[in-house]
Amino acid sequence: MAPHRPIDYGDATPEVRAVFDDIKRRRKIEDVNNFWKYLAHDPASLQRTWQSVKEIMAPGALDPLTKEMIYVAVSVTNNCRYCMASHTAAARAKGMTEAQYAELIAVVGLANETNRLANAYDPPVDAKFLAE
Amino acid sequence: MAPHRPIDYGDATPEVRAVFDDIKRRRKIEDVNNFWKYLAHDPASLQRTWQSVKEIMAPGALDPLTKEMIYVAVSVTNNCRYCMASHTAAARAKGMTEAQYAELIAVVGLANETNRLANAYDPPVDAKFLAE
Amino acid sequence: MAPHRPIDYGDATPEVRAVFDDIKRRRKIEDVNNFWKYLAHDPASLQRTWQSVKEIMAPGALDPLTKEMIYVAVSVTNNCRYCMASHTAAARAKGMTEAQYAELIAVVGLANETNRLANAYDPPVDAKFLAE
Amino acid sequence: MAPHRPIDYGDATPEVRAVFDDIKRRRKIEDVNNFWKYLAHDPASLQRTWQSVKEIMAPGALDPLTKEMIYVAVSVTNNCRYCMASHTAAARAKGMTEAQYAELIAVVGLANETNRLANAYDPPVDAKFLAE
Amino acid sequence: MAPHRPIDYGDATPEVRAVFDDIKRRRKIEDVNNFWKYLAHDPASLQRTWQSVKEIMAPGALDPLTKEMIYVAVSVTNNCRYCMASHTAAARAKGMTEAQYAELIAVVGLANETNRLANAYDPPVDAKFLAE
Amino acid sequence: MAPHRPIDYGDATPEVRAVFDDIKRRRKIEDVNNFWKYLAHDPASLQRTWQSVKEIMAPGALDPLTKEMIYVAVSVTNNCRYCMASHTAAARAKGMTEAQYAELIAVVGLANETNRLANAYDPPVDAKFLAE
Repeated sequence: MAPHRPIDYGDATPEVRAVFDDIKRRRKIEDVNNFWKYLAHDPASLQRTWQSVKEIMAPGALDPLTKEMIYVAVSVTNNCRYCMASHTAAARAKGMTEAQYAELIAVVGLANETNRLANAYDPPVDAKFLAE
Repeated sequence: MAPHRPIDYGDATPEVRAVFDDIKRRRKIEDVNNFWKYLAHDPASLQRTWQSVKEIMAPGALDPLTKEMIYVAVSVTNNCRYCMASHTAAARAKGMTEAQYAELIAVVGLANETNRLANAYDPPVDAKFLAE
Repeated sequence: MAPHRPIDYGDATPEVRAVFDDIKRRRKIEDVNNFWKYLAHDPASLQRTWQSVKEIMAPGALDPLTKEMIYVAVSVTNNCRYCMASHTAAARAKGMTEAQYAELIAVVGLANETNRLANAYDPPVDAKFLAE
Repeated sequence: MAPHRPIDYGDATPEVRAVFDDIKRRRKIEDVNNFWKYLAHDPASLQRTWQSVKEIMAPGALDPLTKEMIYVAVSVTNNCRYCMASHTAAARAKGMTEAQYAELIAVVGLANETNRLANAYDPPVDAKFLAE
Repeated sequence: MAPHRPIDYGDATPEVRAVFDDIKRRRKIEDVNNFWKYLAHDPASLQRTWQSVKEIMAPGALDPLTKEMIYVAVSVTNNCRYCMASHTAAARAKGMTEAQYAELIAVVGLANETNRLANAYDPPVDAKFLAE
Repeated sequence: MAPHRPIDYGDATPEVRAVFDDIKRRRKIEDVNNFWKYLAHDPASLQRTWQSVKEIMAPGALDPLTKEMIYVAVSVTNNCRYCMASHTAAARAKGMTEAQYAELIAVVGLANETNRLANAYDPPVDAKFLAE
């Protein structure tokens, strides 16, 4: 058996199909992304992860595009290739322009640089950041 | 000599003072944060880093608050305590509400979780994310 | 010269062959994995690393399968593709079931999420965790 | 308002109290850890995170102690101080001996070392690890 | 449009060409590396990054080879495949021998290992490292 | 019992004392650093780690100062506070000047930034970096 292979709709259990159906309905897409087809090897994780994604990525105090860009920022920092590809695409689908993408990546680069400058020079947190 | 100590305005070279003055003028603050006082040990880095921060964090295709939240997302992922404290404060100063902060952190947590699920199950990037 | 190429048994020095022979004998395999063939460019590292692997991964207070799963957890967190592949295979060879693998990855995902929630909300370590 | 402060039971909303009560009942403890008191600023995250912890950390194909040790492995790799403290304590409460702890950390160290050796020498994943 | 494609000299704006020309002149090369052709989608980042690279990587208190090896050390730790390839090549071009490379990687591996041992055992920083 | 406490020479087993003695002799110091006193809880790790440090950090194709600076680069990237403190001190003891330290940190910051730019724009590795 291959270590990891996608589970397509036709081969899925009813439990997995129910999640796939919900993803397709919500996202108005024909088929789910590979991420979900691979995660389907663990139906409990599939269900829980999709539930979390639905709740957390829904519009709330932050709009969906801002949330996708935050997702991209984390994925770039962690160098998760699949996640960068899928969430950059999702951000574009939600209206991210090339200029916005360029600025997003510039901020991510800058933050990763200054995080290390702060680690090294180790300034104490300013009192005002801690004050009541 | 202590490994790292702040360089205060009174002890700074004219080159360093010029950067401190620019930070204070731009940010309309009385004194610069500890980060800059420690980075002042390396005047070239101080100048270059402040120049980058000015350019990258300025309003552009993304608004300043969105940029600060992206900065926080990276700093939380990297566990840079100083950076979390200072950029969370900056985001609050730019209008981030507690509800927005809570959603930001929830997205960061989710992205760090699914980044590892993607690493482990290793789905190939869907063709549509690569297509022309 | 290519930056990195495997050193096969036939091209190896006696010093490298001795390590390869020990790996093959211990693991009852015909040939060593690519990791060792590439590391053979640095015979001192090859020898030291194999020595550490032998000592640390041997059965002790923890059984070998638990150790392999911990290895996988770190490799998934660091996104080391080779290490995930080789240590997941090793864990399967030592009896890891698909259900165990699924739970392992779920814990890794959860830990990476809550690590960031803890970084962001920055709770002080509870006194009881520090107490004598 | 201070950036982060604990929300104690007495100050909590009924929604938050319900989660605190469930944590205390399940874990047979008098009071919840600081992590939950800080996360209570985001009741939705509090509820979702506790739900995930309950499901994922329950005994299943892996026993609870193995799961805690995997949690520690990730937290050590990410240098999350709170998480190391709380999950090491949890693992000890579930029976982890000092000898087991020592071996766990030794494996984590080794995996972090060889992850970088593999990154640098970049061996291709052996065909057998990919084979059907 | 493909998410990311190189911008070649012939398709570049005068602003981008000016950076490309400076890179080629400084490095005495016929064409710039792919990194710069992709970064050219964001001309401001292209210009700023090249400016930083020129300043930081120039000979100073540290010689250029030492700087390249430090760059490799970071890239291996972060598992940035492109950066490892390009900066290892640059270090070799500046005279890094295979023996030096092997020792560099061995130190990177060791540091990543002991970083985690220190995280886990959490020794307080010795007074002498903090003393004036 | 406290989770982690130092094991001082007076309380150490003969096996641990032998390592402590070797560290003191080699480094010409009165007492070992806290790192070793905490690691002494796992005598096998203590011995193996000290053996690796002795071999890897010894002068070879790279001089000891270069090795210490590489160690610092990794520790800053990983944000290991103890390791930054101890290896920065060690580098200073081996002659690192403040100007060299400043350049080291600037390179580390730059590499962490460009690592993310490379992750995001994902340029293919140039053929010349792969060529034979």
